[in-house]
Amino acid sequence: MKINELGEFGLIDKLVSKLPPVSKRTLVGVGDDAAVFRPTPDHDLVLSTDMLVQDVHFAKQTMSFQDVGWKSLAASISDIAAMGAVPRQALVSVAVPRALEVHELEAIYEGIADIARVYQVDVVGGDTVKTADKLVLSVTLTGEVPAGRSLLRSGAKPGDCVFLSGPVGGSAAGLHSLTTTPITQGKHSYDEVVLHQFHRRPQPQVAAGSWLMLCGGCHALNDVSDGVASEANEIAYASCVTIELTARAIPIAPEVRRYAAASGLDALEWALYGGEDYQLIGCLDAKLWPAAAEAFVSQGLSLHLIGSVAAAGGAQVLLVSEGQRELLLPRGYNHFGS
Amino acid sequence: MKINELGEFGLIDKLVSKLPPVSKRTLVGVGDDAAVFRPTPDHDLVLSTDMLVQDVHFAKQTMSFQDVGWKSLAASISDIAAMGAVPRQALVSVAVPRALEVHELEAIYEGIADIARVYQVDVVGGDTVKTADKLVLSVTLTGEVPAGRSLLRSGAKPGDCVFLSGPVGGSAAGLHSLTTTPITQGKHSYDEVVLHQFHRRPQPQVAAGSWLMLCGGCHALNDVSDGVASEANEIAYASCVTIELTARAIPIAPEVRRYAAASGLDALEWALYGGEDYQLIGCLDAKLWPAAAEAFVSQGLSLHLIGSVAAAGGAQVLLVSEGQRELLLPRGYNHFGS
Repeated sequence: MKINELGEFGLIDKLVSKLPPVSKRTLVGVGDDAAVFRPTPDHDLVLSTDMLVQDVHFAKQTMSFQDVGWKSLAASISDIAAMGAVPRQALVSVAVPRALEVHELEAIYEGIADIARVYQVDVVGGDTVKTADKLVLSVTLTGEVPAGRSLLRSGAKPGDCVFLSGPVGGSAAGLHSLTTTPITQGKHSYDEVVLHQFHRRPQPQVAAGSWLMLCGGCHALNDVSDGVASEANEIAYASCVTIELTARAIPIAPEVRRYAAASGLDALEWALYGGEDYQLIGCLDAKLWPAAAEAFVSQGLSLHLIGSVAAAGGAQVLLVSEGQRELLLPRGYNHFGS
Repeated sequence: MKINELGEFGLIDKLVSKLPPVSKRTLVGVGDDAAVFRPTPDHDLVLSTDMLVQDVHFAKQTMSFQDVGWKSLAASISDIAAMGAVPRQALVSVAVPRALEVHELEAIYEGIADIARVYQVDVVGGDTVKTADKLVLSVTLTGEVPAGRSLLRSGAKPGDCVFLSGPVGGSAAGLHSLTTTPITQGKHSYDEVVLHQFHRRPQPQVAAGSWLMLCGGCHALNDVSDGVASEANEIAYASCVTIELTARAIPIAPEVRRYAAASGLDALEWALYGGEDYQLIGCLDAKLWPAAAEAFVSQGLSLHLIGSVAAAGGAQVLLVSEGQRELLLPRGYNHFGS
């Protein structure tokens, strides 16, 4: 069925029925001029938004509509996690091309519902409009963090440990596999299927972000949406420090290493420049490192030491590889490349 | 200059420089993973979002890029006003077609800055992405209202007065004039120029919404984004009441009446089915009417009595016109019409 056969309100009813029930925090959800919720006392509100355009950020060849829904909210949840906050309310707007089938839009909402359940996000509203051509999704997410405790990019100090909350490069490796061999051909190895999951169902690190906020020693935090090179440079720039990363310390999943070796490609390239892994990268007071690493493991999380803040000033990132020290430039995904 | 010559960060810098400085409420604005603000204690948070697509919601022929910016935020401010809340923080996302010039995008941000200054909204973030074809704008806005005091559509009671906060039909009349005679031909009457302003620079009724919230007797409130017929029906449906409107009591600006008469058209049609006037329509305890009308006038606001809640049940709207009572159907702008 085409969208215009259903009408706007019929469509909204169909989509809302896919979503999980909202929490008690949400006083008014979908259905009035605006949503209403009760903020937690003595907390700051955090706001993030992401826009995804068909054939720019996702394509039918590499992602199902459910994946697109999952990923649209994952990007914003990751931004909230990177502030040390927990996600609360989401608004989802869609510009719907005439050719889209109702079941395809429903599939997007199934993916949104999946991730909303996992991260306990209330989807409280949005807008549905028509468009001539490409599907556009816009997701806005609120989060909460104890007042004055949000984690910025700008507080890194010389001597800090630089960490990653988990392996990177998996999303880019997955995309490589999916664009090389379309999913419909079904000729992927077990490793590749794992990589596809990295690309299609990334897991934002909310628990890690919360712990880093609570520990009181995390001086800077960012999420890896545009690759380690770009994100580390953002911290170095915002904090005006020189960060030194050790190439072989950067965690890369074994499936990524094996796939890269089999394809004659460089896994480190994906880790540094790939993006969309939604792990957290940040700078932690070195005195806290042993306790933090232990606490993370005991909670089923991980924390990988990948370098240090070498000096004040510089606003640069150096990569140490086989004894060589080279400048790591913030080359990543250029959203306005031609 | 084309957008891709400037790069993403150069573009963001250029756009942010157009915006007014943020208030003290905003702790972190543009530039980190997410914005952070401190909510007012004992207030609820209100959230609304609107998406605008080029050649669906606006066109070069009828609006300047500044107007598009103004109107994109006006729609959300009006939703916040319709909850009795005041607007606070906005996020603005844009999907930018390759052909768009940088100065055109800057003009959109000038219009956003204009309305942000008037309504004291902090623009705290957003997303800028590229798209193949049509410009898409997505605006999300927060608002605040004293805890438990937001005004919904669902509380109308038999005996309530039904009111409008100002004249309607002006936006549709303006659009009619602009589509009949393009602005570039410069052959418009003084009346038509006034109508164009109604269409291009609508004024959301935040002060009226706040007063209605504070007075304690406003049982239902909605903003006129899809025409009086559609909005009155939404209240009748949500409150499960029968609303009776008096056709000749519906306020219509003299410029609209004169333009309709000169064009051989019906001004009431625009008022009932036009939309985008961003006035407020609602139901007020009849005992409060005299005091409310007086208080509105003393504050330079207006309140027009247009009907009453005739009975419980029915979930319908009747229009009384020259002694005849007929069902007023919620025909309005169908966002998914073909």
